[in-house]
Amino acid sequence: MKKGDFSFMPDEEYTWVDFETLEKFMRDVMIKIGVPEEDAKIVADVLVTSDKRGIDSHGVGRLMMYYARIKRGQQLPTTNITIIKDNPGTARWDAGNGMGHPVSKKAMQAAIDKAKKNGIGMVVVGNSNHFGIAGYYSLMAAAQGCIGICGTNARPSIAPTWSVEPMLGTNPLTIALPTDWDFPWCADQATSITQRGKIETYARIGKEAIPGWVIDEHGNAATDAPDILDKMLEFKAALTPLGGIGEDLAGYKGYNYATFVEIMSACLTQSNFLQACLGVKDGKFVPYNLGHFFIAIDIESIIDLEEFKKTTGTMLRQLAGAKKAPGADHIYIAGEKEWLAGKERAGKGAPISKETQKQFLQIQQELGLDQYDFGFEVEIDKSATPGW
Amino acid sequence: MKKGDFSFMPDEEYTWVDFETLEKFMRDVMIKIGVPEEDAKIVADVLVTSDKRGIDSHGVGRLMMYYARIKRGQQLPTTNITIIKDNPGTARWDAGNGMGHPVSKKAMQAAIDKAKKNGIGMVVVGNSNHFGIAGYYSLMAAAQGCIGICGTNARPSIAPTWSVEPMLGTNPLTIALPTDWDFPWCADQATSITQRGKIETYARIGKEAIPGWVIDEHGNAATDAPDILDKMLEFKAALTPLGGIGEDLAGYKGYNYATFVEIMSACLTQSNFLQACLGVKDGKFVPYNLGHFFIAIDIESIIDLEEFKKTTGTMLRQLAGAKKAPGADHIYIAGEKEWLAGKERAGKGAPISKETQKQFLQIQQELGLDQYDFGFEVEIDKSATPGW
Repeated sequence: MKKGDFSFMPDEEYTWVDFETLEKFMRDVMIKIGVPEEDAKIVADVLVTSDKRGIDSHGVGRLMMYYARIKRGQQLPTTNITIIKDNPGTARWDAGNGMGHPVSKKAMQAAIDKAKKNGIGMVVVGNSNHFGIAGYYSLMAAAQGCIGICGTNARPSIAPTWSVEPMLGTNPLTIALPTDWDFPWCADQATSITQRGKIETYARIGKEAIPGWVIDEHGNAATDAPDILDKMLEFKAALTPLGGIGEDLAGYKGYNYATFVEIMSACLTQSNFLQACLGVKDGKFVPYNLGHFFIAIDIESIIDLEEFKKTTGTMLRQLAGAKKAPGADHIYIAGEKEWLAGKERAGKGAPISKETQKQFLQIQQELGLDQYDFGFEVEIDKSATPGW
Repeated sequence: MKKGDFSFMPDEEYTWVDFETLEKFMRDVMIKIGVPEEDAKIVADVLVTSDKRGIDSHGVGRLMMYYARIKRGQQLPTTNITIIKDNPGTARWDAGNGMGHPVSKKAMQAAIDKAKKNGIGMVVVGNSNHFGIAGYYSLMAAAQGCIGICGTNARPSIAPTWSVEPMLGTNPLTIALPTDWDFPWCADQATSITQRGKIETYARIGKEAIPGWVIDEHGNAATDAPDILDKMLEFKAALTPLGGIGEDLAGYKGYNYATFVEIMSACLTQSNFLQACLGVKDGKFVPYNLGHFFIAIDIESIIDLEEFKKTTGTMLRQLAGAKKAPGADHIYIAGEKEWLAGKERAGKGAPISKETQKQFLQIQQELGLDQYDFGFEVEIDKSATPGW
């Protein structure tokens, strides 16, 4: 591949499944395990949107994770929202250990509504769960003429600078905003360099992790993917923050941004933080009790929206038109790869890996959802069930 | 040095000057060149605060830069603020090409005031100039029970991922918040890995830049510090975003955060962006016309402030107490090094490099500020005057 090229496809073998089928299946699975229909539709939309944007790590491939968590009572299928504080510009909600997606969609909409009245709004949510791609919620704001910012904490993965222990979540700090391009500018990104899912894929296809992604207990870069996965579970390896190991390339900056997201998510909401977000305590599954935050800035309150979109578009065209590195074909702007993935996948659907295929068939069988025929040629293998 | 150790001292030879003298000198220089006394005090406080925190790159060593810009008419000593838009939660100001420090202090205070009423507030400022350390303004919010976020764009330095051309400013995205520690948590950081000032120092002391800090026109890591400085001026070398060269260590994430700061600073305010922020056009000095943004979140509107401080403090203690890498002595939290520098420097003052000593003497002589006797043993060398 040339510099800057990227693939819309997973690194593993896959089978196409159209988005309509995927969305229906996600929704039906959720309904079958107790998620109210309106919420189930939201979960399905968030997951399928992820695959449409080429982010397979956070899309329908996560179905088994939610399914397992609900089945074992770790999170509730129903999402009863309590408003703890409400002000013109801010609010604090409690998600009642329900589904992260519907509460997050509602919270971002509430932040947008506050922004439309006052210029800026923020809603924080506590006692919640994994909410899918953070970009989904920031993009809601962008679609309504706002700058959307959101983040969440997550299972401990990142070691602070000069530590070797997984402490912070991959803690995305995600931003989206409208421009005059064909798609919103959208930085949907974790504050770690990479994520466990990527290393799982590398382990399955026999690829080495890139030095700098993971720090081992000796403070060195670990690259053996299967070994990393084992060691991470034992807290003997950790993801690195953006900026990498040590301070030479300013790893402390990524560590600080990850910490900021952890504070915004957990400390404003009295949710779990750091290693308490493991979902396991004394050998038992317990609620994750995660926190999220959602900020919307109404552009029109500051400057004419069309003027902003045009100026921002011009700026982005200058970035995309900057002098390229030799061998580089294209300078991307945030959200462009996801938009290209969407165009490429339209009419085709999502590439479903063999791992995910097995999980779909298992769930389908357990719930008796016989109306689906994916045509997968795999055997159900319950060993694929994720422990988390 | 052990892993995680850091030095409070510059890498170069220096002479101590006490903070009181420095603050008076900064103020008197500003007043002599037309800055109103109240504003001059603010500029002096921002600059000296930087040195007190150990951030010599943005402190009194920048005096010549402001002095030169005002003298050649590139920026005005007076700061006439125009309020273009004002809403309960947001506002847009124009700084009239005046001093960045006083307008920024007032803008952050306005954001805090809005937050105290509504929960969250944001003020954006356009048509402005270099404002010193971004942390100063975020710390104002922390001191008033708020989470403070601020940023600014700056001269083009960072190349976007897969480009080799300096396009984006070092664009700090800075956050501060109160905790129960002895100092506020404060991530006062650029979205580049490093900054030109660091490479200037390395050039003077004959040190090589760390590979990954700078990309040359061939797309490779440049390390020869004097050569980098020349090439950066010719746009043949650029700083890298946090995450480094290419995508292996997620350089696009730093590039995206830098872009976000550029958009927030320039596109909401119709200020200059990217290479228009050079301060030079057609061989003539022109205003920088920078933009800044200031966000304050009133913690008390969301959760009891003392509870937040305690929870956050507990979380930070867990981070600081995480398992250390072999050879590492200490895991720092954001703002801790600056606090330690402050303790170390209290009663001593700031270490003034020979380069800065020459500049002080030149300015002193030109303005006839004979009441100062720094005791520097250097000759005035006008070649030290920065071109920017």
